[in-house]
Amino acid sequence: MGPGACFAGGNAMLWDVARDRGPEAAARAALDRIEAWADPALFLHRVPEAAVMAEAARLAAEGPMGRPLYGIPYVVKDNIDAAGLPTTAACPDFARVAEADAPTVARLRAAGAILLGKVNLDQFATGLVGVRSPYGTPRNAVDAACVPGGSSSGSASAVAAGIAAFSLGTDTAGSGRVPAAFQNIVGLKPSLGLVPTRGVVPACRSLDAVSVFALTAAQAGAVLAVLAGPDAADPYSRAAPAGWRATGGAVPPALRVAVPEEAELLFDTPDDAALFRAALARLEGMGAVLERVSIAPFLALARRLYDGAWVAERTAALRDWVENRPASLHPVTRTILEGGLARRTVDAFDDFHAVAEARLLSRALFARADLLAVPTAPGIPTLADLAAEPVAANSRCGTYTNFVNLLDLSALALPAGFRGDGRPAGVTLIGPAFAEARLLAVGGALHHAAGLPLGATGEPTPPPEAGAGAGAGEIPLFCIGAHMAGLPLNGQVTALGGRFLRRDRAAPGYRLYALGNRPGLIRGEGEAAIEGEVWALPAAGIGPLLAQVPPPLGFGTVALESGPCLGFLAEPAGLVGAPEITALGGWRAYLASR
Amino acid sequence: MGPGACFAGGNAMLWDVARDRGPEAAARAALDRIEAWADPALFLHRVPEAAVMAEAARLAAEGPMGRPLYGIPYVVKDNIDAAGLPTTAACPDFARVAEADAPTVARLRAAGAILLGKVNLDQFATGLVGVRSPYGTPRNAVDAACVPGGSSSGSASAVAAGIAAFSLGTDTAGSGRVPAAFQNIVGLKPSLGLVPTRGVVPACRSLDAVSVFALTAAQAGAVLAVLAGPDAADPYSRAAPAGWRATGGAVPPALRVAVPEEAELLFDTPDDAALFRAALARLEGMGAVLERVSIAPFLALARRLYDGAWVAERTAALRDWVENRPASLHPVTRTILEGGLARRTVDAFDDFHAVAEARLLSRALFARADLLAVPTAPGIPTLADLAAEPVAANSRCGTYTNFVNLLDLSALALPAGFRGDGRPAGVTLIGPAFAEARLLAVGGALHHAAGLPLGATGEPTPPPEAGAGAGAGEIPLFCIGAHMAGLPLNGQVTALGGRFLRRDRAAPGYRLYALGNRPGLIRGEGEAAIEGEVWALPAAGIGPLLAQVPPPLGFGTVALESGPCLGFLAEPAGLVGAPEITALGGWRAYLASR
Repeated sequence: MGPGACFAGGNAMLWDVARDRGPEAAARAALDRIEAWADPALFLHRVPEAAVMAEAARLAAEGPMGRPLYGIPYVVKDNIDAAGLPTTAACPDFARVAEADAPTVARLRAAGAILLGKVNLDQFATGLVGVRSPYGTPRNAVDAACVPGGSSSGSASAVAAGIAAFSLGTDTAGSGRVPAAFQNIVGLKPSLGLVPTRGVVPACRSLDAVSVFALTAAQAGAVLAVLAGPDAADPYSRAAPAGWRATGGAVPPALRVAVPEEAELLFDTPDDAALFRAALARLEGMGAVLERVSIAPFLALARRLYDGAWVAERTAALRDWVENRPASLHPVTRTILEGGLARRTVDAFDDFHAVAEARLLSRALFARADLLAVPTAPGIPTLADLAAEPVAANSRCGTYTNFVNLLDLSALALPAGFRGDGRPAGVTLIGPAFAEARLLAVGGALHHAAGLPLGATGEPTPPPEAGAGAGAGEIPLFCIGAHMAGLPLNGQVTALGGRFLRRDRAAPGYRLYALGNRPGLIRGEGEAAIEGEVWALPAAGIGPLLAQVPPPLGFGTVALESGPCLGFLAEPAGLVGAPEITALGGWRAYLASR
Repeated sequence: MGPGACFAGGNAMLWDVARDRGPEAAARAALDRIEAWADPALFLHRVPEAAVMAEAARLAAEGPMGRPLYGIPYVVKDNIDAAGLPTTAACPDFARVAEADAPTVARLRAAGAILLGKVNLDQFATGLVGVRSPYGTPRNAVDAACVPGGSSSGSASAVAAGIAAFSLGTDTAGSGRVPAAFQNIVGLKPSLGLVPTRGVVPACRSLDAVSVFALTAAQAGAVLAVLAGPDAADPYSRAAPAGWRATGGAVPPALRVAVPEEAELLFDTPDDAALFRAALARLEGMGAVLERVSIAPFLALARRLYDGAWVAERTAALRDWVENRPASLHPVTRTILEGGLARRTVDAFDDFHAVAEARLLSRALFARADLLAVPTAPGIPTLADLAAEPVAANSRCGTYTNFVNLLDLSALALPAGFRGDGRPAGVTLIGPAFAEARLLAVGGALHHAAGLPLGATGEPTPPPEAGAGAGAGEIPLFCIGAHMAGLPLNGQVTALGGRFLRRDRAAPGYRLYALGNRPGLIRGEGEAAIEGEVWALPAAGIGPLLAQVPPPLGFGTVALESGPCLGFLAEPAGLVGAPEITALGGWRAYLASR
């Protein structure tokens, strides 16, 4: 199938170049790839080469200074402001030079990423195909006969082609997911409000999300970690719940995945269907339990996005253009936006109440499933398909994406493989709001299991990285007895959101006693290092766990070989008469000895 | 001024009758008061006397069985369903017999409350005055020349008159607060979604709240505790944050109260202004620090409620009536609802974005203030005022209430005293969503400090009850050292939402040591009972607090005189060389002895 054949540059991922050879080498590699790629419809504005190299040199001179995206080249969709560059939203008459960075661009700059330029999109982010731009259509990096996907067309093409290590898109109806599916890359649509949308040309302000394209889930997560966080000047920004993390999530031990009923699944070709089934089989291979659910109410809701109140939200954002300067608009975009003018508010509230009803069903679904898996799109249209039916072929692409933002969900689009004709298909994992860490953990494993090349680069998908330490909002807890993995009280830990971090040992100088079905640890002159497990608990879960711990046990600081850590300790007065088992070195050894 | 003169029955509060003499006596007293009150415009449907007494007898036969509202008589606004009774919303043609209780009524029934009937309202809950009903105007229990306030007119009159111990109203624009101000009672407008609105005739579904009228804040809190909680079938229901409680809140030690700028305050009479100033002075007397803030953006938003998209939300809920049966509607209500038909969705989104912007300001306000205090209304209109200008006089009543639901805030309307002409005025405390416990704690103290009679009953306002035990979602923690009130680390406890419960003592059998600036407690053969304080912490706060506790201290179970309790314990191995101070009986005594 050779998607790598489309890739003209060297094959090392830009992330690796930046890490191994520094910002200047990464910037140089990106600029060379832009030249080699030679797509005149990709960039709407480039940062001049000299400016890119000067920024890289400045970063190199300063050194990493802990910056998480140090020297990583990226591009942004041209509906997001970057100071000093025009923002067009793919409407030439709309162009204005941004005075300030959008908060997202400012955060990336502070994190050491290097901006290469602004890339093409469906005008005003209205579309899912990438052909609705007066600047032409960015080339699909996997198959040039196919649409690139939209509206974040250029953002996806640049990543798939290996020009940018990652990119920013926006996603209201699926614009951060459909192009990922159509170009064999990862597209992360974060929870509404998690990433600021200030400095973005609005589509539907209340539903817009800034999205991330990358070659792997781990890379998308690293970018999200930089982007996420409230913005005090953005009315649609909201704080994530305490303990939220972008990365470091775990695949739940018994992952419950909801899947649409067979009869509700729509595919363009049998190969598209087979690729989705294969993705489900890989999830099962990871230990997931699949449950078929009806998503008919969500599909019905999805139809309201372009046939209900939210068309008027798009129109409201661009009212002056629609009413006074319609000739400046792309003909398809203009027709859509004009449709919003006539809508009545009494009808709009029917739509809003329908959303509220559907959110109720969605809450119920995610109470019994960790994730919902859907195809990202029914199939990939060709450029010829779009020329034949510009609206219908576009609408079909949003079948599995349109409902997500309306329901306040998070989503991660992942490659699912290639059809017999070499064209890509995608699978999307959907979770409740703020489930990004779980989506990325499961998605990373699923992507790796598919054994695909990355984008159009020909590089293999690397294995997902294991979460290392406790994240912000978590407290590591040293467990030494029945709370360890596989033992009777481990469920108390996992029910509170605990996740396994590592095996570890208490430094010598503790004594262990057997209190019936639990061990008791005290400081003493013991000579063995007591084995245990460090679990990361959400800080909010420590109290509820402790409330289930009977005397003489409690929590205090235990000196581990790796340093001090909260852990189980016993009151010595409560151990009188209990047998000492220090010499066995731990509770598992004691259980095995009985 | 003698508002009690309006009250025809005996003066014992129905709560006291139910508690002291049981359900049958309480029901009998309520029925007698209905007779004596003799207002033909108050009830739209009564539960037949025999049925009320039969229900009371059933309850009496069963006994309290822990039911929190055992034998308490109440009424509901006639836009809330009670099984077997008609729901009219004060529109005779709309009447239909409810097949099932609204969840609120069902919860009250299960809690042992006794329903007396359905009471009058402004038709379809559209109005703030109580005169827009074809069934006449319920009498204002304090001054019959004045409007009762609306739209929950009957709900307020019944409580002020001592007929019902409490009542349910609804509140979209102020209907749960304005009638409280106009009849010298308490009106609690809970956070949106905290109390289910299923089974309520919608006004603005997305903004409607079921509200509580009572004579005291404590009584309103007791009712809220029964009403609150998610309803799986109500799309606008939402779960309160972990640790939320209806009651048992504390007055923060340094209460920060925001107050509108003088220039933004509108009053009907100098007496209304003086009564608001007096309420502020009482807050200062309670230790509050007042800060003047501009609420101009909120007042501007308030005007959009009846001059923006939400009129169309009302219209949408009653569209069939507006379009096809307008003659069935009250003329004023009809004019308002017809105004919603022409509105355009493109304009609606301007309103929604304005709400989002104002919520941003509101979040900033409540980041630096615990509460916002406003007059409940500029003043109280007479029936003659309303006859002269039916719309303008009504609109003016919503000056300080209209913005609250749009901003997703909670509010508590309280009596503020009587003008020179004997007519009542009110003060409203406003907090962020889910601040009910704080509003009720502060409001109860403020109400008591005003020294007013209750409603029109002539009864004095009782002192607020102190919160007794830990609530759901809280864990009591026995503090023995620097975390106690007034000591250096107490801020760690209060910052996590901790509240003082009581002084207590460890049962004899512990030893106390001085570890520099902290005590260490261990089980031993100590003879003194060690003094400390029990603080209730949100369960989610235990972990973050424990993370700040250095070794050799930790948390475990301490046997108190009142029973086992989580508390500070030390590792004996960490106390080597520390002086024992058990004989002093506690850390405060030790500090005093140095």
